Amino acid sequence: MRLLIKRFVGVVSVSVFLFSLLLSFPVSAAEHRYDPGDKVYFTYCHSHPPALKIKPGDKVITRTRDASNDAFAPTDKTLAPKLDLTKVNPQTGPFYIEGAEPGDTLVVKLLKVAPNRDWGWGGAIPYFGALAPEYKTQMVTDPVKDTLYVWKFNPDRTAAVLDMPKSKAGKAEVPIRSFLGTIGTAPPGKECISSLVPGPHGANMDFNEVVSGVTMYFPVFEPGALFMVGDGHAAQGDGEVMGAAIETSMDVEFTVDLIKGKTINWPRLENDKFIMSIGSTRPLIDALRIACVDLINWLVTDYGFDKMEAYQLLGQAAQIEVANVVDPQYSVACQLDKKYLPK
Amino acid sequence: MRLLIKRFVGVVSVSVFLFSLLLSFPVSAAEHRYDPGDKVYFTYCHSHPPALKIKPGDKVITRTRDASNDAFAPTDKTLAPKLDLTKVNPQTGPFYIEGAEPGDTLVVKLLKVAPNRDWGWGGAIPYFGALAPEYKTQMVTDPVKDTLYVWKFNPDRTAAVLDMPKSKAGKAEVPIRSFLGTIGTAPPGKECISSLVPGPHGANMDFNEVVSGVTMYFPVFEPGALFMVGDGHAAQGDGEVMGAAIETSMDVEFTVDLIKGKTINWPRLENDKFIMSIGSTRPLIDALRIACVDLINWLVTDYGFDKMEAYQLLGQAAQIEVANVVDPQYSVACQLDKKYLPK
Amino acid sequence: MRLLIKRFVGVVSVSVFLFSLLLSFPVSAAEHRYDPGDKVYFTYCHSHPPALKIKPGDKVITRTRDASNDAFAPTDKTLAPKLDLTKVNPQTGPFYIEGAEPGDTLVVKLLKVAPNRDWGWGGAIPYFGALAPEYKTQMVTDPVKDTLYVWKFNPDRTAAVLDMPKSKAGKAEVPIRSFLGTIGTAPPGKECISSLVPGPHGANMDFNEVVSGVTMYFPVFEPGALFMVGDGHAAQGDGEVMGAAIETSMDVEFTVDLIKGKTINWPRLENDKFIMSIGSTRPLIDALRIACVDLINWLVTDYGFDKMEAYQLLGQAAQIEVANVVDPQYSVACQLDKKYLPK
Amino acid sequence: MRLLIKRFVGVVSVSVFLFSLLLSFPVSAAEHRYDPGDKVYFTYCHSHPPALKIKPGDKVITRTRDASNDAFAPTDKTLAPKLDLTKVNPQTGPFYIEGAEPGDTLVVKLLKVAPNRDWGWGGAIPYFGALAPEYKTQMVTDPVKDTLYVWKFNPDRTAAVLDMPKSKAGKAEVPIRSFLGTIGTAPPGKECISSLVPGPHGANMDFNEVVSGVTMYFPVFEPGALFMVGDGHAAQGDGEVMGAAIETSMDVEFTVDLIKGKTINWPRLENDKFIMSIGSTRPLIDALRIACVDLINWLVTDYGFDKMEAYQLLGQAAQIEVANVVDPQYSVACQLDKKYLPK
Repeated sequence: MRLLIKRFVGVVSVSVFLFSLLLSFPVSAAEHRYDPGDKVYFTYCHSHPPALKIKPGDKVITRTRDASNDAFAPTDKTLAPKLDLTKVNPQTGPFYIEGAEPGDTLVVKLLKVAPNRDWGWGGAIPYFGALAPEYKTQMVTDPVKDTLYVWKFNPDRTAAVLDMPKSKAGKAEVPIRSFLGTIGTAPPGKECISSLVPGPHGANMDFNEVVSGVTMYFPVFEPGALFMVGDGHAAQGDGEVMGAAIETSMDVEFTVDLIKGKTINWPRLENDKFIMSIGSTRPLIDALRIACVDLINWLVTDYGFDKMEAYQLLGQAAQIEVANVVDPQYSVACQLDKKYLPK
Repeated sequence: MRLLIKRFVGVVSVSVFLFSLLLSFPVSAAEHRYDPGDKVYFTYCHSHPPALKIKPGDKVITRTRDASNDAFAPTDKTLAPKLDLTKVNPQTGPFYIEGAEPGDTLVVKLLKVAPNRDWGWGGAIPYFGALAPEYKTQMVTDPVKDTLYVWKFNPDRTAAVLDMPKSKAGKAEVPIRSFLGTIGTAPPGKECISSLVPGPHGANMDFNEVVSGVTMYFPVFEPGALFMVGDGHAAQGDGEVMGAAIETSMDVEFTVDLIKGKTINWPRLENDKFIMSIGSTRPLIDALRIACVDLINWLVTDYGFDKMEAYQLLGQAAQIEVANVVDPQYSVACQLDKKYLPK
Repeated sequence: MRLLIKRFVGVVSVSVFLFSLLLSFPVSAAEHRYDPGDKVYFTYCHSHPPALKIKPGDKVITRTRDASNDAFAPTDKTLAPKLDLTKVNPQTGPFYIEGAEPGDTLVVKLLKVAPNRDWGWGGAIPYFGALAPEYKTQMVTDPVKDTLYVWKFNPDRTAAVLDMPKSKAGKAEVPIRSFLGTIGTAPPGKECISSLVPGPHGANMDFNEVVSGVTMYFPVFEPGALFMVGDGHAAQGDGEVMGAAIETSMDVEFTVDLIKGKTINWPRLENDKFIMSIGSTRPLIDALRIACVDLINWLVTDYGFDKMEAYQLLGQAAQIEVANVVDPQYSVACQLDKKYLPK
Repeated sequence: MRLLIKRFVGVVSVSVFLFSLLLSFPVSAAEHRYDPGDKVYFTYCHSHPPALKIKPGDKVITRTRDASNDAFAPTDKTLAPKLDLTKVNPQTGPFYIEGAEPGDTLVVKLLKVAPNRDWGWGGAIPYFGALAPEYKTQMVTDPVKDTLYVWKFNPDRTAAVLDMPKSKAGKAEVPIRSFLGTIGTAPPGKECISSLVPGPHGANMDFNEVVSGVTMYFPVFEPGALFMVGDGHAAQGDGEVMGAAIETSMDVEFTVDLIKGKTINWPRLENDKFIMSIGSTRPLIDALRIACVDLINWLVTDYGFDKMEAYQLLGQAAQIEVANVVDPQYSVACQLDKKYLPK
């Protein structure tokens, strides 16, 4: 509410505020169930027909396919034979939020992101990954060898286990912390952008803090916002350095809301402890710059900070997360503990 | 011990191993007190005369000046009038570790890093800092305006407080978590490198995990290693994005040890929970690559991992820290939870 | 012809070859005149309806608006009041080339690129340009101040003159060497990409060698290729470092051809002296890598070079051109003198 | 002379000017012959004893070893067996220029750079070169395979020929255009920097325009400037993309001069047609920024340009050269045709 209240001072703003309240706290929020089946999208785009039209306050219960479009079986050893490169990173949606107009902010609260099967896959993908020749950092030497790594989930799906027969450790057990690798709205300028590419509209940020419980804010660039989700990860290290996380299909639940007339430039995330901005571009330092400058702008605009004092505070208290260093644009989050915000 | 033992297989190595044991567990470790006074250095360099000659196992109790060479008073408002650019980032040492030869690894256990005064400074430094035109990312537009920010420590030195008169929050209180911004050995190749520059020899990594309690590993490039410390920070956000942390003078205590014949290429750090490698270069992605490749090499060499399985594991479990994005070389740490190491 | 002949060895290829000949040397090449009027596009996209359907061998006579969509008058002093950011970099086309299928190569020979008015504009555009804070290299400091610079062409349009009242030189006269800043085909994967963005499909490479007389090769990703042109520049320094060239409207003439079944990954250009590949991405070094690796691949595939010998030859003879360092992706050309190709 | 004259206006400057004239046009310029033998240096450093003390106006006739310290024979096939990594890129000098003080500019006119033997070598060096995993862009995949390529010079040393037995072309003949890959002064701050590293003091810029006939300007950071040369290249493509040029030993002749009290920040080069500034750092875009900003500063300071008009002019007329993309810092030159300078 702080966000809403602080922006609407003065007589003129009151009616906008009340209208916003109406949108934000509808009398009866609906709950929608949507199973995409094979009706998935591979771009974020203004022209996709809505999967559902929903209202601010509504809840959606849906599911996502894995980044391979569910192409693999847990017995597979390589990616190439089954991976259809024209059908990578399928997205569920788009969800059309009624009342959303360009210049608004879409608010999404993630209620559930949980694997709906008992395994996921990682992989060494030729010409992909941060520590080998890739499609942008091109080289004349050989890429990594195509290898599929299958992670088995334990019965209560709290951990994923990889057999590592060539290593002394023998196996690795990683705690499951499920999140959505791809989440966002239709981009501006009538662009249709591959779901592999993150940007101002969000999408493939591959940020391992997009877990159940967080609230995200996205710019609305198109009527209805056209929100989509996909690319569930059971777990992922910072940066997703090998190019794939523990990729799996997910059950997903979320509610949506709007902040009318509030314009933001990049995705933002709030959890119990932090507010954070997420920048996506290459090179990595510019993704960091975008994230930290946007966080400073946020502090100035919504929390009454002086710009240079906010910059000084970030110098001493910012926490920076490297979300991905493998997608066509890298993603970095710049975050600040909410204890530094004015009461 | 695992590190030592696994490397010395075969008859020839036994004597080296025993010699190493002697160095590692001396009968009577000495404790040295050293106050540099104004005898500080501004380069990491093979030709600096040792401040002390110490033995593996010895403990050193010393102190460091702040990065301005203690130039400021807490009443100052700007940097330029007092800052002598030829005397920036003074280092205490070098400490000559007897028996250290090129190709060895220096082990440093930090026992104490604590401010010895009650304030520190941060600053907006023209042509410095990640979010403004700087000495490498040069621009035709104006830099930040020279401003000194003074942080006052509370009586028990657990927090630093900044007045922010232009901001609604009014002030910020950051928990003190003291660390050494600069720490390392003499570089290879008879280079003498400014103490502002981090590299394979460590130095100005500005990594906020170099706190009391950690163990660090440095390559030895010169006889005696020529270990130095400086640039104490009472606290610092990730990346040190504004170019200065909360800069202060420190009381420092550490012990040193050697791993004879063990060659590493980049600084490494171990704490209760993680092992990590620290890469320093520009651009940022290459610092990340150096750190993660070195960590993979560490896992392969010392912990029996297959290289590609280690890479896959990092993909799902690496934690990446952005240490600095303002120094002549950026620094990134790539870390792995020690629970993934074989028993 | 060398390109065509060397690829079609064996019986099966003969029919393809003959078909290709038919396409390449049609009995009667048509000449089409097309004036887009205000029917211009701001994305490169599979879904734009063709402006014309043409055949391999056909010639097109058309025109392009300037990058501002002809928004300015030569008396303007600033950009902001007149520039409609939703209508930047308008493109003429798309031209649908009959027979073009994904996996083919489109051949375009530029016959004329000539200003059709007597002035052009350059500008200092806030948050744009390589030497100031911009939309990707974001900063907290001020951007450049919005300024329009008008260049007047001499009567025979061989030179453009700028008054520089604040400089001792008083004015600058730059030789006109007209080229198309933006030229390319519809991108792959059903993406629709802003005409400001260069990539594998070409588009906004802002490469000052795309002049009359050159032959360009583009990947065909969509049926008909959907070729477009725009963004005429009367002249431009390497890199287009201030963000705009001498922007003007152009008369454009070109012929098209196809190499059936020949797949290339990035745009290529051939003039009397050089062959060159053009890579587009950020960071700049990766654009260079893409360009040079593609040129090596070209030498290997079409000219019988060993990969490493080709790499060695580039080491001693490559000429590298920085096309743009201001667009959302940077562009670099890697070129080799044709004298090094086998006879 | 323009440079000298324009700086000394006013009464106070006259004596400086006259003194400068004395230095610049000594009554009898001496000619020094110096053969370094094996007395070469591998760092640029304040503490190297002068090879010669010379006066402004003096001429030096000397020679340089090749970058391998003349380790190879033309029959060698690989680098590793003979290359001593502690003795790479040997430098001739330093030449102490009497009267040179920090803050002055050293002027060097190259009179001769010519191979003094009949072959040179290039190479595929593991973990070196722009198109393969290297020491900064580290990867887990394999580097290039160690290979030495020997180029034979024709009798009049106008061309170098490489046999390419695996390629259809069979061989390549590259015109010889000899230059010094490494040239510069002692760095500031009492640093001693590997001769492999370029920077504000010049050194290993590997810029293929440093040929006989050009005039270079270097900052003086240490008394006497301590000028050194080395790393002769018979020819090199832009960027030196494979990591080595056609490396050979050279006969070198040059004269030196001083501009007293004229402070520059980066090396500059002037030939018959262009003035240019050379920036060295990673990433590549920042080397470009340094070069172009320095050129703008040059135009403002010495030629009376308004900063933004100079920037606009560079936008339309700059020529950018990629000098090296393989050394620890990349080098880029930003150049402007001298016809744009005021008369």
